[in-house]
Amino acid sequence: AFVPSRLLAICQRARSNYAMSNGGGVMSSTTHLLDFLEEPIPGVGTYDDFHTIDWVREKCKDRERHRKINAKKKESAWEFTKSLYDAWSGWLVVTLTGLASGALAGLIDIAADWLNDIKEGVCLNAMWFNHEQCCWGSNETTFAERDKCPQWKSWAGLILGQEEGPGSYIMNYFMYIYWALSFAFLAVLLVKVFAPYACGSGIPEIKTILSGFIIRGYLGKWTLLIKTVTLVLAVASGLSLGKEGPLVHVACCCGNIFSYLFPKYSKNEAKKREVLSAASAAGVSVAFGAPIGGVLFSLEEVSYYFPLKTLWRSFFAALVAAFVLRSINPFGNSRLVLFYVEYHTPWYLFELIPFILLGVFGGLWGAFFIKANIAWCRRRKSTRFGKYPILEVIFVAAITAVVAFPNPYTRQNTSELIKELFTDCGPLESSQLCQYRSQMNGSKAFVDASPNKPAGPGVYAAIWQLCLALIFKIIMTIFTFGLKVPAGLFIPSMAIGAIAGRIVGIAVEQLAYYHHDWLVFREWCEVGTDCITPGLYAMVGAAACLGGVTRMTVSLVVIVFELTGGLEYIVPLMAAVMTSKWVGDAFGREGIYESHIRLNGYPFLDAKEEFTHTTLAREVMRPRRSDPPLAVLTQDDLTVEELQGIINETSYNGFPVIVSKESQRLVGFALRRDITIAIENARRKQEGILLTSRVYFTQHAPTLPADSPRPLKLRSILDMSPFTVTDHTPMEIVVDIFRKLGLRQCLVTHNGRLLGIITKKDILRHMAQMANQDPDNIMFN
Amino acid sequence: AFVPSRLLAICQRARSNYAMSNGGGVMSSTTHLLDFLEEPIPGVGTYDDFHTIDWVREKCKDRERHRKINAKKKESAWEFTKSLYDAWSGWLVVTLTGLASGALAGLIDIAADWLNDIKEGVCLNAMWFNHEQCCWGSNETTFAERDKCPQWKSWAGLILGQEEGPGSYIMNYFMYIYWALSFAFLAVLLVKVFAPYACGSGIPEIKTILSGFIIRGYLGKWTLLIKTVTLVLAVASGLSLGKEGPLVHVACCCGNIFSYLFPKYSKNEAKKREVLSAASAAGVSVAFGAPIGGVLFSLEEVSYYFPLKTLWRSFFAALVAAFVLRSINPFGNSRLVLFYVEYHTPWYLFELIPFILLGVFGGLWGAFFIKANIAWCRRRKSTRFGKYPILEVIFVAAITAVVAFPNPYTRQNTSELIKELFTDCGPLESSQLCQYRSQMNGSKAFVDASPNKPAGPGVYAAIWQLCLALIFKIIMTIFTFGLKVPAGLFIPSMAIGAIAGRIVGIAVEQLAYYHHDWLVFREWCEVGTDCITPGLYAMVGAAACLGGVTRMTVSLVVIVFELTGGLEYIVPLMAAVMTSKWVGDAFGREGIYESHIRLNGYPFLDAKEEFTHTTLAREVMRPRRSDPPLAVLTQDDLTVEELQGIINETSYNGFPVIVSKESQRLVGFALRRDITIAIENARRKQEGILLTSRVYFTQHAPTLPADSPRPLKLRSILDMSPFTVTDHTPMEIVVDIFRKLGLRQCLVTHNGRLLGIITKKDILRHMAQMANQDPDNIMFN
Repeated sequence: AFVPSRLLAICQRARSNYAMSNGGGVMSSTTHLLDFLEEPIPGVGTYDDFHTIDWVREKCKDRERHRKINAKKKESAWEFTKSLYDAWSGWLVVTLTGLASGALAGLIDIAADWLNDIKEGVCLNAMWFNHEQCCWGSNETTFAERDKCPQWKSWAGLILGQEEGPGSYIMNYFMYIYWALSFAFLAVLLVKVFAPYACGSGIPEIKTILSGFIIRGYLGKWTLLIKTVTLVLAVASGLSLGKEGPLVHVACCCGNIFSYLFPKYSKNEAKKREVLSAASAAGVSVAFGAPIGGVLFSLEEVSYYFPLKTLWRSFFAALVAAFVLRSINPFGNSRLVLFYVEYHTPWYLFELIPFILLGVFGGLWGAFFIKANIAWCRRRKSTRFGKYPILEVIFVAAITAVVAFPNPYTRQNTSELIKELFTDCGPLESSQLCQYRSQMNGSKAFVDASPNKPAGPGVYAAIWQLCLALIFKIIMTIFTFGLKVPAGLFIPSMAIGAIAGRIVGIAVEQLAYYHHDWLVFREWCEVGTDCITPGLYAMVGAAACLGGVTRMTVSLVVIVFELTGGLEYIVPLMAAVMTSKWVGDAFGREGIYESHIRLNGYPFLDAKEEFTHTTLAREVMRPRRSDPPLAVLTQDDLTVEELQGIINETSYNGFPVIVSKESQRLVGFALRRDITIAIENARRKQEGILLTSRVYFTQHAPTLPADSPRPLKLRSILDMSPFTVTDHTPMEIVVDIFRKLGLRQCLVTHNGRLLGIITKKDILRHMAQMANQDPDNIMFN
Repeated sequence: AFVPSRLLAICQRARSNYAMSNGGGVMSSTTHLLDFLEEPIPGVGTYDDFHTIDWVREKCKDRERHRKINAKKKESAWEFTKSLYDAWSGWLVVTLTGLASGALAGLIDIAADWLNDIKEGVCLNAMWFNHEQCCWGSNETTFAERDKCPQWKSWAGLILGQEEGPGSYIMNYFMYIYWALSFAFLAVLLVKVFAPYACGSGIPEIKTILSGFIIRGYLGKWTLLIKTVTLVLAVASGLSLGKEGPLVHVACCCGNIFSYLFPKYSKNEAKKREVLSAASAAGVSVAFGAPIGGVLFSLEEVSYYFPLKTLWRSFFAALVAAFVLRSINPFGNSRLVLFYVEYHTPWYLFELIPFILLGVFGGLWGAFFIKANIAWCRRRKSTRFGKYPILEVIFVAAITAVVAFPNPYTRQNTSELIKELFTDCGPLESSQLCQYRSQMNGSKAFVDASPNKPAGPGVYAAIWQLCLALIFKIIMTIFTFGLKVPAGLFIPSMAIGAIAGRIVGIAVEQLAYYHHDWLVFREWCEVGTDCITPGLYAMVGAAACLGGVTRMTVSLVVIVFELTGGLEYIVPLMAAVMTSKWVGDAFGREGIYESHIRLNGYPFLDAKEEFTHTTLAREVMRPRRSDPPLAVLTQDDLTVEELQGIINETSYNGFPVIVSKESQRLVGFALRRDITIAIENARRKQEGILLTSRVYFTQHAPTLPADSPRPLKLRSILDMSPFTVTDHTPMEIVVDIFRKLGLRQCLVTHNGRLLGIITKKDILRHMAQMANQDPDNIMFN
C-alpha cells in the first residue's frame, strides 16, 4: 500500500480567502475556483506514527500561517505583538535549545566524571568531589603527583585499610567490576522500563526524522530524561562508548520540547525540523567544543532540508550552547573539551606518508567496523539472542571491566586516554608515554620528558599496553554499539585512531632519531631538534578512524581544527580524512549511520547517494503489468456507497481522481483518510446524504434525475495540484524531484492519461532491488 | 518569447544504447521506445550567449557520460586509466584553481603594495622595493621610526632635493595626484579596450552565472589578464575600492580556464559551475585568509547548486589557495592578511550596547549605500553621462586624490588604515591613535601607549581626522562602485565601519575613564585596568558595515573570526552583524549584489527571497486571456511546410507537442532550434523529404495516402518528459520547483489537457510585478 500526499486544498482554500479579503487585485481569477461555503474539516493535517511527512504541504501551510499573521498585524496592537512574537520565535527557540543543551552537556560531563571516579574510590572530605577536585584542596600533593592525596581513598584503602599490595589490588579490581556492572545494569534497566528510544546514539533516527519521518516520542521529555541519566551511567560503567553522539540526541530532544512552546513550530513538521537541525548543531558544538564544526556537521551529516535561515540559527544555537558549557567549565580548564591541545612544531612534507597510512588504517577500520557491527546487530535482531538485552549488557560490561582493569590505558576514562595521547610531551608531563632517556648522560635512571630522544623503558611498556588496548577497543566497540544503552561511537573510534596514531608517531620519531642520516630525515630533522610530534599523529589517526566510520569529511576536519586552533594542521587532517573516506568507500559507500538506518528499514532517501541506474518511471510505478488496475475515483459519477466500497476493498492511502474511466484524464488526488472523515462529517451534519447520494469533485453538481438524493460535494478535500511526471521520465530525475521537493508520491501519465503512481517507498524498494538488496527491507511509508 | 528546455532525448537515446549494450536486464522495456537508427544530430546541447541553462538536462548528460566511462572501464588498461583520470579530474581542477588563485593573489598583493608606494616616493637602492622593504635593509632606522630611512626618497626629496617645507609638500601633493590619475587612466583604458567584463567586483555576475546563466567571455583568459593588471592599478590609484571582491572574480576565471583541461567540466555547464563554486571559495580564502569563511561565503552568498561533493572540493581549493598565499608571504608577517589581530582583553556584557549600536549604524549605512549607489548607477545607465566612462573615472580619481592627500587616514592604503584601526594600542604602537596621556605624572609631554588613560592631543586630532575620513569614504564609495574599473566593496565598507567603530570605542573608553563610578562601569572597569579595547570596536563596526551592504551573516562572522582566532569575540560580532542585517532588511531586503543583478536585468531567481504571494499557476502562465492561443505542434498531422510556417510566424524557442488539437493531450516538448536543425539535416541527408512530407513525433508512421512523399520522423528531438504542473498549483510551489530543480520552463495542464506554459522569465516578471517593479526590467531568458 502506498501513502500518498496530503491534500493542498486546505491551503488553497485559505489562500483564496485571503485573496478575497485582500480586495482581489491580480488574483481575482482565483475566486471562482474554490468553495468558500464549506468549513475546514477537523482531523486533517496530522500524520500517523511511522509515516512520512509531505514537505510541500507543510511549507505551504507555514506560508499560509505567515500570511494570515501578516494580514492581521495592522489590526491592533495585540495582533502586532503577536506577529512580533511569531517573527522572533525562531530565534527564541534556538536560544532556549542552545541554553538547555549547554547546561545538560555540562551536567552530564560533571556527573559522568564523578561517577567514573566512584569506580576507583571515594573522597573522604566530600562524597560529591571527583578524584581531581578532591585533591585540589590538599596541600600535601606536589604537581608531579597531583592525583595522589590522603583525602582520596581507593576502595581497598577504605575497606581493607591498605592502599598497596595484592590484596588491595584484588579488592580494587572487584569494586571496579562491581560498580561497572551496577551502572550498566541500572542504565539498561532504566532504558528498558522507561524509554526504549533512549538507547543507541540516536543519530540514525535523527537523520531519518530530519528527512521527514514521524517517530512519536523519540524526542520526547521521557527520552530526554532517561537518556541524560543513563548516558551518565553508561559512560561511567566503562563500556567502550562515548557521550558525544547521544549529546546530539539530547540536544534534539531539547529542541523538540521547546518547539512546543511556539505554535509556529509545534504545529508544522517541516518547521520543527529546522529547529532540530539547529539543535543537532548545538549538540555537536557542546560535544566537541566546536560551534562551526557543529553547524557543518548538521549540514553535512544529519540535515535534509537546510535553508539559509536554518544555517544562521544553527550557528547561533551552537554558539549559545558553547558559551553556556564554557561558563559551567566542567573540565576546569576554561576549555569546551577535555582534549584541547596546542602544538608548537610544524609538520614536514614527508610526514604526509605516515598520515596517509593512518588514513588507510582509518578507512579499513571503518569498513571492517561497519560490516562487523551490522552483521552482529542483524544477528541480534533475527535470533533469540536479542530477547535478553539486560543480560547482554551485563555480559558485555563484565567482560569489558574484567579485561580493562589491568591495563591503565583501558582502565581510565576514554576521553582522558584520548587527551593523554593527543598531548605532546612537555617538561611537565609525567605520563609513562613521555619517559624518554635523556641524551646528556645516557643513564637509564634519568628520565627526561623532552621529545626526540631515544625511548625509555616507560615508552616501550606503554607501546605494548597501547597495542593490547587497541585490540581490546576494536573488539569491544563492535559488540557495544547497538546495546540497549545510550552509546556514542565518536569517542571509541577516536580512541582507536589515537592509539594507532600515537604508536605510529613514536615509531616515526624513533626512526628519525636512530636514522637521522636517512635522506627523508636529513633535511629537516637534526639530532636534538624537536621535529616529530607523536601527539599530532594521534590526532590525525583519531580523525581518520572517525572519518572511516562516519564518512564525514569537512565537518570532521573543522571539528578537529577547532580542537587545535592551528590552521597549519588542516592539511595533514584533510589528507588522512580524505584517504580514509576513499578507502572506506571502496568497501561500501554507506557510513555507520546509513547502515543502521537501512538495518532498521526506515524510509530514508539519502541525498548523498547518487541514483545511477537507467530505469524509466514506467518501470518503477505501480501498478506493474501483472497487478490489478490502479484504483481511481471518477469525478462525478460515483455514489457514496460505491466510494465506500472502493475504500474498503483497497488498502491504499489515497486515490487519483479522474474525469472519466474512458478519458483517464487526471483531475486531482484525494486521501483515503480525508474521504472517510468527510463522508462521516457530511452524513452527520448535512441532511439528505444517503448511501445512494452522488459524490462529485467538480465545481458544479452534475445534472441528476429528479428523484435522486442530495449529492455530496468533496472538492474541498481534493488536492488539485498533484505532482505528475510522464512515463518516459528517467528515474534519476524522479529521484531528484523526490529528494529536492520532499514528495511522498507522484502520479505518472502518458500523453495526458493517468497511468500509475510512484511513492517514496516504491523508489526505495527499487533502489534496494537495483543494489541487489532485499526490497522488503523498507518497512515504513 | 520564452526559452524552453533543451530536450532530454539525446540523454534518453544514449541511455537506451547503454541499456542495450549492457544486455538489458530489468531495463528491457525501454528498448522499443526510442529510435536507434538515427544518429545524434550535431549542434544540439550547447547554449547561446545570455541564455539560461537547463540544470536537469546537464546533470542527466553528466550521469550519462559517467555511465559510459564506467561501462568501458573494464575493456582495457587505457580505458581504466581514462576512468581514473576522469574520477580524479574534479580534485585536480580544484587543486589547480587553488594554486593559481593563491599565486595570483600574492602577486596582486605585492604589486599593489609597490605601486601604491610609488605615489609617495621611490626607493633609491632598488626601484622594485616598496617603502617598507626599502627600509628593511637600512641600519639607520629605529623601531619607532621604521618607515623613515635615507634610501626611501619622497618625490619632493628626489626632484626638489628637500623633504620638508611647503614647497616639497606641494610637490608631493602634485606627484600623488599625478600618479593616481595615471594609474586610474591606465586601468580604465585597459578595461575599455581589452576586456569590458573586467570592471566592477564581478560578484553579481558570478552569482548570476552560478545560478545557471551563460555570459561568454566573462570568465575568460582576457578578462583574467586584464582584471589582474587593472586591479593592481585601480587599488594603487587610491580610489575608494578594494581588491577582495575582484579576487573572487579572478579565482573564478582561473577555475573556468582550468576546467577547459577536463572534458567532464568543459562540456557540461552544470559541472563547470561546481568548479566555479569551489573557485569562489578559494577567492575569498585568499582575500581574507579565511578558508572556512570562504567555503561558507560560497555556500551562503554566491552558489546556487551546492552538493556535498562541492563542499569538500571548495574546502580543499580554499585550503590550497591559502597555503600558496602563505608561502608567498606577501605581507611579510607569515599571515594571510594584512589585518590579522589578536586581542587579550575579554569583553563585558554591557559592551553589547555599543556593539548593537554599531550594528544599527552598519545596517543604516548598508541601506543608504545600496539606495544611493543604485540610483547613481541607474542614472549613469540612462543618461548621456554613462557614455564617457574614462572621463568619469579620471574625474572621480582626481577628486579622491585631491581630497585624500591632506588627511593621513585617507592618504594611506585602505587596508593599512583598517589594520591600524583594528590594532590594539600596545607599548610598541607609535600611531597617533595611541597617544594617551600617562596617568603617572599627568604631564602632557609624556606620551604613553597603554590604554584606558585620558586621551592625549594626538587622539583628539586623530578623531577629527577620522570623522573627516568617514564622511569622505562614505561619499566617494557611492560614486566609485560601478565605475569601469575593477572595484571591490569589502574594503571600503570595512574601512567605514572600522572608522566608526574606533571612534565609538575611544568614546566608550574615555567615558569609562572619566566616569568609572557609573553603575555600568563600576563592576568591571576599575581605574588603571585595561577594560575596553577600541580595536575590537573597530572590528565589530567593520563587520557590521560589511554585513549591512552585503547582508551576509554566518560567512562574515566566520571570516572575521578567522582574522582574530578568538572564539570569545564571536558573540559581539554575531550581535552586530545580525542587528545590521535586520536594520538593513527593514529598508529593503536586497543586498548590493542582488540590487546590481536586478539593475542589469539578469534572470536570477534568488533562493533566499521567499515568494509570498497567493497567485496560482494559471495567472502567470502564457498565453494570457487576451493573447493568441499557444503555438503547439500536433504529433502526426503536420507537413514540413506547415511546421516551418509555425516556426517562422512565431518567435518562441520551443513548442509543446500534443496528440491532436481536439484532445490537447500533451506528448512532449520540442525546441525551435532542434526542429530547424533536424529538418535541414533530413532534407540534406534523407531522400524524398519534400515540403509536403508529413512530420510525425510518434513511434510509428501514420497511415498516409499512397502517393504522399516519404514522411519525416522527429521523435529523437522530442523531450518526452517535460515538467508539468496543474493550473491550480500555487505559484509558491512552482517557484520552489524552478529553484530547486533549475528548470527553464514548465507546462501547465488542466484535467490532463495542455493549457499554457510558464518560463523562468515569466516567473521573474511576475515577481517584479508583484513587488511593484517594472517587469520589463528582466531582459534575458
